[in-house]
Amino acid sequence: MTTGTNLQTNPQNLSTLRGTSIFASLTAGEDNEWLSRCHTRSLCAGESLVDYEDLSKDVFVVQSGEIRAVLRFTVGKEAILGTFRRGDLLGELSAIDDMARSASLMAVSDAVVTVIPYVVFHDILRNRPEVCLALMQLLSRRIRVMNERISELSFLDTKHRLYNTLLRLSRLRGDGGRERIISPPLVHAELAEHIGSSRETVSREMSKLIREQLIERTSRAIVLKNPVELSRRISRALEG
Amino acid sequence: MTTGTNLQTNPQNLSTLRGTSIFASLTAGEDNEWLSRCHTRSLCAGESLVDYEDLSKDVFVVQSGEIRAVLRFTVGKEAILGTFRRGDLLGELSAIDDMARSASLMAVSDAVVTVIPYVVFHDILRNRPEVCLALMQLLSRRIRVMNERISELSFLDTKHRLYNTLLRLSRLRGDGGRERIISPPLVHAELAEHIGSSRETVSREMSKLIREQLIERTSRAIVLKNPVELSRRISRALEG
Repeated sequence: MTTGTNLQTNPQNLSTLRGTSIFASLTAGEDNEWLSRCHTRSLCAGESLVDYEDLSKDVFVVQSGEIRAVLRFTVGKEAILGTFRRGDLLGELSAIDDMARSASLMAVSDAVVTVIPYVVFHDILRNRPEVCLALMQLLSRRIRVMNERISELSFLDTKHRLYNTLLRLSRLRGDGGRERIISPPLVHAELAEHIGSSRETVSREMSKLIREQLIERTSRAIVLKNPVELSRRISRALEG
Repeated sequence: MTTGTNLQTNPQNLSTLRGTSIFASLTAGEDNEWLSRCHTRSLCAGESLVDYEDLSKDVFVVQSGEIRAVLRFTVGKEAILGTFRRGDLLGELSAIDDMARSASLMAVSDAVVTVIPYVVFHDILRNRPEVCLALMQLLSRRIRVMNERISELSFLDTKHRLYNTLLRLSRLRGDGGRERIISPPLVHAELAEHIGSSRETVSREMSKLIREQLIERTSRAIVLKNPVELSRRISRALEG
């Protein structure tokens, strides 16, 4: 999956399909032709792109902003399945298997997406075996991530699930050191949705981590000061 | 996914790839040609077909017996990801994305599998777009099942996870009634692995269900006497 950082240095990618990894093999001509049959859609923060069990089957590529895939039962009972950013493909399951939407997709910030209509998506798949293989690889990667999430939820208690989620959502700070950051920072209620726990439990564990100087919270980021120690604790919990 | 029951009435399918749903579009000639480049492997109950993080990349089709995909950390800490029977495809992730095995595959009973070597699998994919699409649909289905499992693990307490797992693993009894059965029956330790809990907890909850006459345990099966009530309780827990 292409990262926001890579694409920000290539602003011309904004109006191509090729900026998305699974379409990287398209020629410029194909890209233009298929893109002319797509359209863009702008969303405000909080707006829904698709609802769980919708019958729509279009596929989306994020141009800007953040879109989140969420399983929601009632207010406060949500599981965040993933957050998608510039260049990421989403909504492909219903286009592939013709079933209803498996999750809601919601704009976390103001966002713009390219809408690839179902028929266009299938035209591309029929004509470009390379795109099929890249799409299968994307689905495989999703399955692997979900495998890890299932084992995390099956084996780890709340505390270790939190450590795992902090590591999973963070990226290297990029100053050559070993610190990792989550930026923008998630609030405790959001972390709770990631690990299937309550905000109060997350707050308590986060306070402990701050006291132990394993994390630091600023207005702009959660900083993991010692990610190696967090990994070590998870390994110990899994082996114990 | 084809079911064991369907295939048992077509014993001639034993030696074809077309008996597996994703290969259903192959012609007899293609089937013969590609099958001649495959081989079979026999496994004893308990024998491992692939180990977690192995680098092998072959794909398998179950001919007979049962193969289980398991995430294992230490003895007693296992999550069962799925059980595969006659006609089911497995091991495809590593063939698609060239990464190490995401789970262990182990024979639950004596079993025979068709081994489709990596290069043969890719020859088929390159030449048959219908197989690519069917494979994508299979991966989509797996992702949907995992989504449900993640929401189950995120939102339900142990008791309701058990109800959900009993429903998930059961099939209609087939006598026109509403009862469902799990046959052969799982022991409590196995149920505990499905829901990420302990054998003791499962035993306690199973005893309650038997007292409430919601389930019945025989030597050959677990019978769900009132699956509708189990569903209702899960819905209430999710909405509560």
